Amino acid sequence: MLPRMMGYPNEPFAGRTLAEVGRDLRAGRTGPVELVEATLAAVEAAQPRYNAFVTVDAEGARAAAVRAAGELAGGTDRGPLHGVPVAVKDIVDTAGLRTTMGSRHFAGHLPAGDATVVARLRAAGAVIVGKTTTHEFAYGPMGDVAANGPCANPHDPARMAGGSSAGSAAAVAAGLVPLAVGTDTGGSVRIPAALCGVAGLRPSPDGIPGAGVFPLSWSLDTVGPIAGCVADVALGWRVLAGAREDLPEAPSAIRIGVPTGAWFDRVEPRVAAAVEDAVRRLGGDAREVAVPDAEELYHLYRVVQSAEAVSIHRERLDTAPELFCPETLDRLRLAERVPAWEYARSLRRMHALRAAAVRRLAGVDVLVLPTVPVPAPPLGFRDGVAGWDTTRDALLAFTVPWSTLGLPAVSVPLPGDGLPVGAQLVGLPGGDAELLALAARLD
Amino acid sequence: MLPRMMGYPNEPFAGRTLAEVGRDLRAGRTGPVELVEATLAAVEAAQPRYNAFVTVDAEGARAAAVRAAGELAGGTDRGPLHGVPVAVKDIVDTAGLRTTMGSRHFAGHLPAGDATVVARLRAAGAVIVGKTTTHEFAYGPMGDVAANGPCANPHDPARMAGGSSAGSAAAVAAGLVPLAVGTDTGGSVRIPAALCGVAGLRPSPDGIPGAGVFPLSWSLDTVGPIAGCVADVALGWRVLAGAREDLPEAPSAIRIGVPTGAWFDRVEPRVAAAVEDAVRRLGGDAREVAVPDAEELYHLYRVVQSAEAVSIHRERLDTAPELFCPETLDRLRLAERVPAWEYARSLRRMHALRAAAVRRLAGVDVLVLPTVPVPAPPLGFRDGVAGWDTTRDALLAFTVPWSTLGLPAVSVPLPGDGLPVGAQLVGLPGGDAELLALAARLD
Repeated sequence: MLPRMMGYPNEPFAGRTLAEVGRDLRAGRTGPVELVEATLAAVEAAQPRYNAFVTVDAEGARAAAVRAAGELAGGTDRGPLHGVPVAVKDIVDTAGLRTTMGSRHFAGHLPAGDATVVARLRAAGAVIVGKTTTHEFAYGPMGDVAANGPCANPHDPARMAGGSSAGSAAAVAAGLVPLAVGTDTGGSVRIPAALCGVAGLRPSPDGIPGAGVFPLSWSLDTVGPIAGCVADVALGWRVLAGAREDLPEAPSAIRIGVPTGAWFDRVEPRVAAAVEDAVRRLGGDAREVAVPDAEELYHLYRVVQSAEAVSIHRERLDTAPELFCPETLDRLRLAERVPAWEYARSLRRMHALRAAAVRRLAGVDVLVLPTVPVPAPPLGFRDGVAGWDTTRDALLAFTVPWSTLGLPAVSVPLPGDGLPVGAQLVGLPGGDAELLALAARLD
Repeated sequence: MLPRMMGYPNEPFAGRTLAEVGRDLRAGRTGPVELVEATLAAVEAAQPRYNAFVTVDAEGARAAAVRAAGELAGGTDRGPLHGVPVAVKDIVDTAGLRTTMGSRHFAGHLPAGDATVVARLRAAGAVIVGKTTTHEFAYGPMGDVAANGPCANPHDPARMAGGSSAGSAAAVAAGLVPLAVGTDTGGSVRIPAALCGVAGLRPSPDGIPGAGVFPLSWSLDTVGPIAGCVADVALGWRVLAGAREDLPEAPSAIRIGVPTGAWFDRVEPRVAAAVEDAVRRLGGDAREVAVPDAEELYHLYRVVQSAEAVSIHRERLDTAPELFCPETLDRLRLAERVPAWEYARSLRRMHALRAAAVRRLAGVDVLVLPTVPVPAPPLGFRDGVAGWDTTRDALLAFTVPWSTLGLPAVSVPLPGDGLPVGAQLVGLPGGDAELLALAARLD
């Protein structure tokens, strides 16, 4: 059982893990068709509150549920996602199903094919119910700038869900689906997961294929699962990554590194206290790990992301700038000014730091820190907070460094009253399975 | 025997192949000490004519020659370069021996260690006699802009040697050394080799290690040998690349591709005729291969090179711009204006084209075209020629496309009166040995 945090306990997946849903399905206590109908009804009812979805595919979902029901009844079992409703971020291609990138530029766009991750979900028997709200072109950590309007946080609809995978995190947090697909460039899975009180993984680079996913910054983009707990994130990761092995046993005596340095001091006390408690609950030996170059890691990220984002949107900026949301356009216009020499140098430096990143974790199994130094800010808020110059900086500050370094990281929801707080666990490149096994201790 | 093209037939290596020198050394008809003394005297005598050298290391060369003589006398044979004088471009680090990059920025620079290629030459018993004139920071195909003054073409000292590896090609063409090390980013080995009437190889990317070589554009830089004929280039390549195998047999029935398209029509008739003759001499089946994107390949090169060159020189541009030669500074100031998005897009496009480059040669064993569409222009000449807007464009037009595509290419001197003309043979990535075996047919 997951803790019931939402005010709508009758949502189909509120408080239920994927394992529980799977047992109910296989015991005949529910069926894929019953599940999808409950999901579609709940999604429709919740839409005015959270705006978590851009498009709902009732027809396609019902057909997939009927197929899954028939397969399960006939003894074909495709595993933990078989017959389970899932949602997919609206920058991930779904064949014939509208995919808008959160932008008027793609208002009626119908992809010809499925993204690789979508094909893998379908092959695992998952029932895709719809496409979730994304910050426009995934270019922002708030989730409140999109052609289809802002996505609200299920814990307080006056607050942002976080982004850019806002709708995927909100849909899971609200109990509408037990699993959703997000993407993470600088924190776009981890940030909304933390702000919405759910779990989410940024995998190692190339850990999950990005084919068919609209790029934001190809040197930094990843695709990752969002679910109610780490165990469910792990089930989603195995399908999305095409992993064959089970999760390894987490080491019994774990060595925890706590990043330190001025960069990591700007954090709200309640967030810091919750993460300290998580470190204690993980057990084992905790030591400080200096990250004196966090500001450089942040700067490199901004340069690389800016250059690649403008490169991707060049023709749209030239021919139809008015179709962008104003804030997105403003940011792209600033990003246009980055000189080539700075991107060249930053990209090279980033790859050099990635090659040496393993050394930062030498001697520890995992880094633990807050995913975001503050709880969810109000929708539309842009001011500085907790010592950070802007809301964007505050949201991205603790997730971006590991994006720059190419390390996998998972955000885990922490217990407590009030707005959700997430702990971020950072692992070694390629060590996604080990990281998830360790993080699952906090479930 | 090599054809004697120079007006100074008494230079120590005029008309002699490495194989001949090696036979003479092993038969006792000459010795390393005798060779190095003749070389040092010839280098000194030729310096006022060609300015091929920045620094001569008489002391170090004599010591190396004595060592080589002792080893050969004692029965230790390090192979074809043992006891042979060689010259090294002045952007390649030599431990304790001044390495200026052709620039006042490094006027008295003494590297702490040897570049990997220099270490390999020393391990092969080569006698390094000095450092050769480079276009400043290897940033130009003329070889007539350097802190130590312009390098002249041994075939006509009023004309440019071509660059940027000007002194290495001139030293070989003048018979001062039988082998020299150059570097090739957009043609900096091939162009001076062609204009000076010698042979030179741009190897496959990563075919020869670049450690200890001052970068111009890290995505495009290579290191390559220059010698009097292809067979000697191949001997140098084996040492520089650390290759173990002998050259393969060239296929008996070769299929030659001749690049066509408007880009390749701007060529002086005498150059075109000489290359057509070379195609005939190679034998086999010749067919046209369309390269409709040559202009794009050239543009991508300029964007990538500009961004990376400015990145490398950023601090020098900020703190001591007056130390650059004026033309170099002007070019860097223009290159500063390239926006990041354009470099990001161009770099990505270049790597995509590289991944598909093999397809361009599908069905042929080699592409053959002029190395440079014109013979050596006068020193300081910058105007358009043969339909090209500028001298720089004319010199680079036929070498750059293969740099962009990451293909190995060798320039081979062609027989004929007047200023030298080179044929360029382009091979498959990693197919350097096959390419050299085939090109050696033109020796």
